Amino acid sequence: MQVSEAISSRRSIKQFDAGHRLSAPEIDRLYRNARLAPTSFNIQHVRFIRVTDPELRARIRPLAFDQPQVTDAAELVVVTADVQAWQKNPQRYWRNAGERGPIIVDSLLGFYRGREWLQRDEAIRSGAFAAQNLMLTARELGYDSCPMIGFDIDAVGRLIGLPDDHVVVMMLAIGRAAGPAWERGGDLPASEAVFENAFPQPSVSVA
Amino acid sequence: MQVSEAISSRRSIKQFDAGHRLSAPEIDRLYRNARLAPTSFNIQHVRFIRVTDPELRARIRPLAFDQPQVTDAAELVVVTADVQAWQKNPQRYWRNAGERGPIIVDSLLGFYRGREWLQRDEAIRSGAFAAQNLMLTARELGYDSCPMIGFDIDAVGRLIGLPDDHVVVMMLAIGRAAGPAWERGGDLPASEAVFENAFPQPSVSVA
Repeated sequence: MQVSEAISSRRSIKQFDAGHRLSAPEIDRLYRNARLAPTSFNIQHVRFIRVTDPELRARIRPLAFDQPQVTDAAELVVVTADVQAWQKNPQRYWRNAGERGPIIVDSLLGFYRGREWLQRDEAIRSGAFAAQNLMLTARELGYDSCPMIGFDIDAVGRLIGLPDDHVVVMMLAIGRAAGPAWERGGDLPASEAVFENAFPQPSVSVA
Repeated sequence: MQVSEAISSRRSIKQFDAGHRLSAPEIDRLYRNARLAPTSFNIQHVRFIRVTDPELRARIRPLAFDQPQVTDAAELVVVTADVQAWQKNPQRYWRNAGERGPIIVDSLLGFYRGREWLQRDEAIRSGAFAAQNLMLTARELGYDSCPMIGFDIDAVGRLIGLPDDHVVVMMLAIGRAAGPAWERGGDLPASEAVFENAFPQPSVSVA
């Protein structure tokens, strides 16, 4: 499937065929593509928890407003990220870079050190890049998806043993659609989202 | 271009053909696809500032470690998001939803109200979804891209007139590559990024 077709046909689906399972090659392609999303300074800090245990799915569902995709989708993944990955043996992220490696590692340590807000933003940003790759790869495989943030983030984190220095970015359900997407709720025009060089300035009234 | 090919061939490029410009249909496709990325509760809060003014490019470049893609790439976009979009006439995001509309709007107001961390995370998350669509659409159009966070975020925000209730998510350069990507720095194995049901627990030593 072409990129633009995957993007334009991607809609959030909440009803999935609970009897369908993904093949091993499909699962491999999903997570290979997810891991190919960019990370700043190649810190590769995104961690994917595939929820394959039906009992765990059943425990998560009431934490997510009882939404059916939690138990019914072929794949449910909690996208998380290691907020401290930047300082966990960062040499490994640049081990193939030769003489340039140590210079890049010094740069990345200086870039993140002491900037907790940036470390956290980076986790959310990278996790979302990867999640978008998952959603579009799902389309390519003939599947649909539902990105989710409406759940008890702390409780789900506890259920998956989230380490203290990681964050939950979102959940994502993927599978064979068993119902249509909702109608589009109300698209804003491009003129309210795309600007050149600066935000439109409010007009100044001259008294 | 197929989705998987776009994902696997996407690499960060820092050298661009400074003489190349995108056509109007290419620009339209980029931002149409960017705007089709999902947002939670359809709040559509991502705002794209296309930096087309060469003088503004020249002012941004020293704020971004003098990286050449800032001035040389055909397209430079500052991806931002309106952190308060959820409470700015949210009825418009669900105007086509009939009787369901007011119920959804009540839900979204309750979801975001008082949760400043979630409002900010959502801005970063949605901006990153959209940026990934831009990067993959660039590949489909035969172009390359460079996602950037290494710049003076506050200073760039001032240059583009960023409103106080918006955040800068990242910058993205897009254009015709004039040089190769770096070798891959050092890929982590899938076994360090993809887990089933829970994070691996550290082994407990019994005294």
